[in-house]
Amino acid sequence: MATKKSTVKKAKAKRPVILVTNDDGITAPGIRNLVETMKQFGDVIVVAPDSPQSAMGHAITINRPLRLDKVEVFEQVDSWQCSGTPVDCVKLAVNQILHRKPDLCVSGINHGSNSSINVIYSGTMSAAMEGAIEGIPSIGFSLLNYSMQADFAPSRKMIETIVRNVLHIGLPEGTLLNVNIPDLPLSKIKGIRICRQANAKWKEEFDHRKDPNGRDYFWLTGKFINFDSGIDTDEWALSKGYVSVVPVQFDFTAHHAIPHLNTVKWHD
Amino acid sequence: MATKKSTVKKAKAKRPVILVTNDDGITAPGIRNLVETMKQFGDVIVVAPDSPQSAMGHAITINRPLRLDKVEVFEQVDSWQCSGTPVDCVKLAVNQILHRKPDLCVSGINHGSNSSINVIYSGTMSAAMEGAIEGIPSIGFSLLNYSMQADFAPSRKMIETIVRNVLHIGLPEGTLLNVNIPDLPLSKIKGIRICRQANAKWKEEFDHRKDPNGRDYFWLTGKFINFDSGIDTDEWALSKGYVSVVPVQFDFTAHHAIPHLNTVKWHD
Repeated sequence: MATKKSTVKKAKAKRPVILVTNDDGITAPGIRNLVETMKQFGDVIVVAPDSPQSAMGHAITINRPLRLDKVEVFEQVDSWQCSGTPVDCVKLAVNQILHRKPDLCVSGINHGSNSSINVIYSGTMSAAMEGAIEGIPSIGFSLLNYSMQADFAPSRKMIETIVRNVLHIGLPEGTLLNVNIPDLPLSKIKGIRICRQANAKWKEEFDHRKDPNGRDYFWLTGKFINFDSGIDTDEWALSKGYVSVVPVQFDFTAHHAIPHLNTVKWHD
Repeated sequence: MATKKSTVKKAKAKRPVILVTNDDGITAPGIRNLVETMKQFGDVIVVAPDSPQSAMGHAITINRPLRLDKVEVFEQVDSWQCSGTPVDCVKLAVNQILHRKPDLCVSGINHGSNSSINVIYSGTMSAAMEGAIEGIPSIGFSLLNYSMQADFAPSRKMIETIVRNVLHIGLPEGTLLNVNIPDLPLSKIKGIRICRQANAKWKEEFDHRKDPNGRDYFWLTGKFINFDSGIDTDEWALSKGYVSVVPVQFDFTAHHAIPHLNTVKWHD
């Protein structure tokens, strides 16, 4: 596993170093489109899972060792596949490949929405969150189309605009961006909206089956329910044909709840 | 798999129904101590992973089916083990076993800290967060001792106090509690503090090895770094011998960043 440190370091002086990862795996069309889009902005390196890791949330791999193998997947882009989760990929990229923080970390393009509550379950967004925890400006991109045959051309145009802006203005400390893109032709996309995460959830439904030995098993499915009628939410923006951009933080403290909790005597 | 719906429903009229889960697996001493502590507050049911699921974050299982088996692990407590993640356990409990929301969801007692940034990686906390997303008052408990031989007696006293208070005052909508307990004898625990999540991170370090075939592999390790000198943080409270209670939310929006992001023109 040669890390080609020299290549990356030389590039650094001239152009931003951009780490690309995802959760659908290194061979997914979404990451290929993201890699191609990012080439114009800097020197791209890819560290991505060797298999699909959707819905892995912020999982990390601590009970088994990780493999990291250099692969030839993208033209003129140093690429590694990793046996771990999207978060593991970011950690390995920073610590074992780049030996420094990249200038930007982008994750995706996810095949399917990561809007509203999906941010919590999403491996795509967890990779971007890990980038932000590392202090790297980080963005997760998702297209509202689960198909492997999705048309990523409109997404690429929108991503160009967003990345150009982020490289220009930076991101407030401790924040990353959750970008969702409607599955529309470019001419139908109305623009880009800064939004808040809609108050929504999955109402789980399990498909209960019996295996050939008569034992029960369950497939997790669910129904998405949006409780939020706000016109400042990502769900609203997407439903109206806008790209939604939600700034996300990894301070999970419900600061507003602290005074309420302090109204009681907590110790006997 | 009989769900014993009748037992649970009958109980409901008289006493709270309390769902207990964890991420260390159904046989861990921590969950046994939590189950025993909760019995005084209501009718306890357990749905927990059949194997350790630490650091699984908010992962859910969508690419393979789930097993859910009734087991005899705890005296007079209906218990199920699940092949999935802690979040899967909560979903299955609500949807396939209880067929309604329990009155309280508690997760733990985790073997090891889930303070500050650990909330993001923790399966214990993700189970509690899933409970909160379902609209259930939810609490994750962790003891600052990774050993399976840890003394949980002081934790049990502190948990009693906290649960009694939460059943009394409830929790603000959209919030759950992240409770961490210092590894001290009861006489040395100074009290309970409502805190915010400290600004801290893991600086990853990988233990790079070669397998017998000469191929590289990596064990994820790391060093915890606290950047936060605030005396209102969980790290501060724990370092001073207090139990830390952080209200946590699943709206990840960095609301404060929205005005900054709105200063630029986002569309070409």
